[in-house]
Amino acid sequence: MEKFLLVLEVITTCCAVTQSMTGQERSEEKSECVSLSPMMEAVPAPPESERVCVFGTGDLGRSLGLRLLQAGYGVVFGSRRPHSSSSLLPHGAQVLGHAAAAQSAHLIFIAVQREHYDFLVPLANQLKGKVLVDLSNNLKKNQYPEANAEYLQSLVPGAEVVKGFNTLSAWSLQNGPSDANRQVYICGESVEAKQAVIAVAIKLGFSALDRGFLSVARELEDFPLQLFPQWRLPLRIAIGLSAAFFFYLLIRDIIYAYVTQSKDISFRIMVSLANKVCPIVSLIMLSLCYLPGVLASFLQLYRGTKYRRFPDWLDRWMLCRKQLGLLALGFAFLHVLYTLIIPIRYYVWFKATERTVSMIRENRTTQFDMTTAWRGDSYLSLGILGFGLYVLLGITSLPSVSNALSWREFSFIQSKLGHLTLLLCTAHTYLYGWNRFLSSSTYKWYTPPGYMLCLVLPSVVLLLKLLRHTHRHTQNNTLSVMTDLSLRGWLPFNHCLPCFWDQKPTITFN
Amino acid sequence: MEKFLLVLEVITTCCAVTQSMTGQERSEEKSECVSLSPMMEAVPAPPESERVCVFGTGDLGRSLGLRLLQAGYGVVFGSRRPHSSSSLLPHGAQVLGHAAAAQSAHLIFIAVQREHYDFLVPLANQLKGKVLVDLSNNLKKNQYPEANAEYLQSLVPGAEVVKGFNTLSAWSLQNGPSDANRQVYICGESVEAKQAVIAVAIKLGFSALDRGFLSVARELEDFPLQLFPQWRLPLRIAIGLSAAFFFYLLIRDIIYAYVTQSKDISFRIMVSLANKVCPIVSLIMLSLCYLPGVLASFLQLYRGTKYRRFPDWLDRWMLCRKQLGLLALGFAFLHVLYTLIIPIRYYVWFKATERTVSMIRENRTTQFDMTTAWRGDSYLSLGILGFGLYVLLGITSLPSVSNALSWREFSFIQSKLGHLTLLLCTAHTYLYGWNRFLSSSTYKWYTPPGYMLCLVLPSVVLLLKLLRHTHRHTQNNTLSVMTDLSLRGWLPFNHCLPCFWDQKPTITFN
Amino acid sequence: MEKFLLVLEVITTCCAVTQSMTGQERSEEKSECVSLSPMMEAVPAPPESERVCVFGTGDLGRSLGLRLLQAGYGVVFGSRRPHSSSSLLPHGAQVLGHAAAAQSAHLIFIAVQREHYDFLVPLANQLKGKVLVDLSNNLKKNQYPEANAEYLQSLVPGAEVVKGFNTLSAWSLQNGPSDANRQVYICGESVEAKQAVIAVAIKLGFSALDRGFLSVARELEDFPLQLFPQWRLPLRIAIGLSAAFFFYLLIRDIIYAYVTQSKDISFRIMVSLANKVCPIVSLIMLSLCYLPGVLASFLQLYRGTKYRRFPDWLDRWMLCRKQLGLLALGFAFLHVLYTLIIPIRYYVWFKATERTVSMIRENRTTQFDMTTAWRGDSYLSLGILGFGLYVLLGITSLPSVSNALSWREFSFIQSKLGHLTLLLCTAHTYLYGWNRFLSSSTYKWYTPPGYMLCLVLPSVVLLLKLLRHTHRHTQNNTLSVMTDLSLRGWLPFNHCLPCFWDQKPTITFN
Repeated sequence: MEKFLLVLEVITTCCAVTQSMTGQERSEEKSECVSLSPMMEAVPAPPESERVCVFGTGDLGRSLGLRLLQAGYGVVFGSRRPHSSSSLLPHGAQVLGHAAAAQSAHLIFIAVQREHYDFLVPLANQLKGKVLVDLSNNLKKNQYPEANAEYLQSLVPGAEVVKGFNTLSAWSLQNGPSDANRQVYICGESVEAKQAVIAVAIKLGFSALDRGFLSVARELEDFPLQLFPQWRLPLRIAIGLSAAFFFYLLIRDIIYAYVTQSKDISFRIMVSLANKVCPIVSLIMLSLCYLPGVLASFLQLYRGTKYRRFPDWLDRWMLCRKQLGLLALGFAFLHVLYTLIIPIRYYVWFKATERTVSMIRENRTTQFDMTTAWRGDSYLSLGILGFGLYVLLGITSLPSVSNALSWREFSFIQSKLGHLTLLLCTAHTYLYGWNRFLSSSTYKWYTPPGYMLCLVLPSVVLLLKLLRHTHRHTQNNTLSVMTDLSLRGWLPFNHCLPCFWDQKPTITFN
Repeated sequence: MEKFLLVLEVITTCCAVTQSMTGQERSEEKSECVSLSPMMEAVPAPPESERVCVFGTGDLGRSLGLRLLQAGYGVVFGSRRPHSSSSLLPHGAQVLGHAAAAQSAHLIFIAVQREHYDFLVPLANQLKGKVLVDLSNNLKKNQYPEANAEYLQSLVPGAEVVKGFNTLSAWSLQNGPSDANRQVYICGESVEAKQAVIAVAIKLGFSALDRGFLSVARELEDFPLQLFPQWRLPLRIAIGLSAAFFFYLLIRDIIYAYVTQSKDISFRIMVSLANKVCPIVSLIMLSLCYLPGVLASFLQLYRGTKYRRFPDWLDRWMLCRKQLGLLALGFAFLHVLYTLIIPIRYYVWFKATERTVSMIRENRTTQFDMTTAWRGDSYLSLGILGFGLYVLLGITSLPSVSNALSWREFSFIQSKLGHLTLLLCTAHTYLYGWNRFLSSSTYKWYTPPGYMLCLVLPSVVLLLKLLRHTHRHTQNNTLSVMTDLSLRGWLPFNHCLPCFWDQKPTITFN
Repeated sequence: MEKFLLVLEVITTCCAVTQSMTGQERSEEKSECVSLSPMMEAVPAPPESERVCVFGTGDLGRSLGLRLLQAGYGVVFGSRRPHSSSSLLPHGAQVLGHAAAAQSAHLIFIAVQREHYDFLVPLANQLKGKVLVDLSNNLKKNQYPEANAEYLQSLVPGAEVVKGFNTLSAWSLQNGPSDANRQVYICGESVEAKQAVIAVAIKLGFSALDRGFLSVARELEDFPLQLFPQWRLPLRIAIGLSAAFFFYLLIRDIIYAYVTQSKDISFRIMVSLANKVCPIVSLIMLSLCYLPGVLASFLQLYRGTKYRRFPDWLDRWMLCRKQLGLLALGFAFLHVLYTLIIPIRYYVWFKATERTVSMIRENRTTQFDMTTAWRGDSYLSLGILGFGLYVLLGITSLPSVSNALSWREFSFIQSKLGHLTLLLCTAHTYLYGWNRFLSSSTYKWYTPPGYMLCLVLPSVVLLLKLLRHTHRHTQNNTLSVMTDLSLRGWLPFNHCLPCFWDQKPTITFN
């Protein structure tokens, strides 16, 4: 009986549509009621509220339709050529012409590219009062003067346009949501329309967040186009530091040798120079990663309260600590590889042979130097332990690992072990330098060597941290607990604040 | 009052059951109404619709029962020996005999192994019209002629059998769903029965997908038994390539030396040969990972449309690109380790000493060769940078990392950085070969060395990519944008298409 | 019309509140009804059941409020100073004084620290019958004699206190739940109150588990404070083993040389000794990781059933296998690094030069030893392959990777490949030792060298595994299938059993 009613209803819908058409269109339209179900018994007959319409039969439309069907919705596809497109559509869906499809449901997903939105203008009558969900994305930012959803609203002023689901791929729609793309963002003017879309999202297994009015649509459309917004500042710092130290060391090592001794050692650029730049940049970036935390805690102590916001530059700095740390790890990784290939270099082999040969020819002997052995082995050992901890910090930064940690565990690893890593790497560099700073030949053209420059920042960070630590223990208890609390509260809150909220606090907060 | 009614109802149920039993059974059954709640006040009394029954008190049944209780359902366990099994069951559940339990709820989870399904036959009366959820799995594929769920349906034709939840472990039931096992698949004949099961799944925190009729059950039952279906083809390619190059190099290096110079250098198999096979296979597999993308874009250009499907072999190839890339990374990792241990090998130490000794005895001197130094260091440096990017590609392939990236970020890393990795590794190999291809002694038995063979494919891929790139920039804008779009649209859609859909397109699409 | 009613309602609420106040308070209170919506049209007017109240305007309260608003709830903040605090609150929320806010909703989130709970005492009247959700955490375990939630209940006996959401950070509230923190735990006395809180949790995208009565609150409050409870035992084992072997080898290597030959080789502590301790501990811990599985399967065979629980010590041991394995991987990683830096050590370079020089001066020649070359290369090659598999095991232990594997895939990797890793590493160590065990000079002070000691455990595990394997194939089929089943069923169930359930089985099971 119910099925019969559905069939009746569809026929009625078709009729209603055809009444507003010319005779030629009518005959076309009629033949275009295509049901994709070979056995009518198999398809449940959902009430109108449980039926949704999808315009567009491309990858996205088809995947969305399949997902909606699997979640128990009745799905009606709207298509220009219902017959030809039905072959690829999911089993159980209906295909109608656009007008008929529009009338068969209250909620219409527009899985069509913005360039083809014009076809909606003649459907204005059928779309009046309907909820149109704009799923579209653009190829690049600022491609059009207004957001796609705003453009859609201007084309069909009688409908309620809701922007949403555009961050999803056809793939995630087919497979069900996985962790990172479970969250969908929607925006629109009508509260009721948004509630209807949220209801569908929840039934599909997503979790929907209302981001506000339709003016936010541009932001949502830019979301899939963003290219590592949080990595830009750290990457620029890394590139800038690398370039600066590269030229500094080029002048000090290669050009100095060429100018003063007419020796061409330019081949050293590829490995020796790279192996000086990498550890220097790595150590500086690691200390840049821990400096803002120390500064912030001093600022809080100085202010005596945690309830005032940090200055903007400090906030931005703190937000990219994770990225700074991971880039530092990348440079450390390269440093390790560059160091380990040292013995298989032609230059090293040549020098070693040359020295042995000259030792024998000149009948020299060398004495085993205990201090050098101790210093060398300690230097290597500290480097290895530091790198081991470095890698551990990197692994706990993986989303799935950090999600599995409690606050206390995460802050223990990232703060305690992080500072220990910095300490080990700094000590490694100090041992590398050893007493070379005493010799005047180190200061070619009166410039300090690279490793000396890169020791400044980590030493400062470690000193401040030590000061902060002893200070906390001598201070009266109340303030110290307060500061401690503030740092605890602030870490999980700030350490990866969403870019949305960060960039546009005016939208979410009044 | 409500609690009183429940108690009454259970008693009535028991009576109803006992009326259809022999006298001996009755006395047994009566004493088997066990409530696991020590304080009746603590247990809410849900209406019948909110009560579910679980047959089977093993790990899975107990965990499912606990989860159902925690989600607010009333749970009645059906057991052969209600008294003896109650000790391990979750607090708050009831245990009844099978017949009484079956009558107390509309939905019955069968957490029993297929071998014991016979006990359901005598319960046919009580199970009429009930929804039976078959949770069972088998030990291996094709263990039985028909799927467990179909067998269950044939045993109890009056009930509505729904297959589902079988991909879950007792562990994930206890702990709540985590990302990958949040999705449950169900199938069955009755739409209403499936809707009821979906409702329970959602309340337990899972997201359920209706996969169709009961004939799909076999597919669902095979799911937990699959062993890396997407890794098979790439693994076969890796093993095939490794074996082929191993024997090729064995003949060229070891056997050639033995035959022509009667020198036994078989010890080189363990490290030297392995360190030739690994980089060769790695580079070939990396180019196999990027070749299908280039081919596909040329095919689209040639066809002038993106709306036609790729040929089957290309589709299958593209679906295993991730696995090809990860295996290539594995071989590269081994290559790095094999290279780094070179200086601690006995053979290398022996050769180096021998050369130094002979230099002194024969009073030879060597000249430092600038070109060799440049070439050697560049070769090592390119290898290090290539491996660094390789590892980066591997890290972004981790599910939790790739989920956190937007489309554009993912395609930037996997496409741009991927091709850069290929370029660096290819250049690394060219520098390794250098001008050796000029010397005729390289071509032992007229065969080219391994590194030359492995350069063919990556060179072709890079050339095609370059051609494709310049082509795009000279072409008229419309087509180029179209192709670009298609690649963008196609990447997230295809790059890890579900195996289900891939293997049986007939099920989901008409 | 509806909006008008809401305004009316709020005014009525305010009036109701003010009637029970003194005149001075009244005038204050009235001016404190602050709406954060600039345009009244934008805010939907939810019925009372859809309105919730949040006490506390800190980070947590604000984030919770924003999330509630985005999920469609009406949010009323309760604040001491409604006017001053409204500037940071999310757009769309209302701010009232505590009393008025309390009366406007049935559900009240207490996002305030325990120290400030006193302010709730005078509100006892307004809070009667309300559901109070205690979100608080403490700074350390056992900070207070009773749980915060129990303290809250004692302060406001008329309200229904539910503990919950305390494991969430402000950050996860803002961004929507991600995988690991999707699960929230609640407890409380009233079933109805808990159901109301569960409903809110589900609408916010979380999945809530009812943990029982309010007496569980302490456990829930300790949850965010735990510091790697599952890592403690493995870490202690690792530290104990490292210390034991460090001192053992210190005596055997350094002190022995000092005492018997008066040679100071203490510099070897930093690298040589570390590079002996690391592989020894790694191999022992890897075999400790696979030993309990073998023991368990023997126990099951001996008992003839899988339905009896394992003894407690075996259970605890099996629960920390993952941690044992990961620590073993860490030590193996350090061993690899320590090995690879060998050729750049000063000591090694010095010894090599010295040997070459003495060879020439004494006019000695050495013969290339084929056996040494084979042994050395095999030893290195096995180590490399073993480490490669080790890393693979580590990668599949990452939550996001292991979640994406089916049971069969996970058990294949962790069991088959795991034992293969153990086999390779053991063979690597045997080849390292080679025939040194024959020479009496190996047994300084009659002690066996470290590598010999560490071979005992892995050899036993591999032998038992082999025995178990052959046994399974000769046994009658029924028992073997049963054991197989039991291992299959037991692996996914036990391998990462929740600590909750593990520690307090009495809570969840009767």
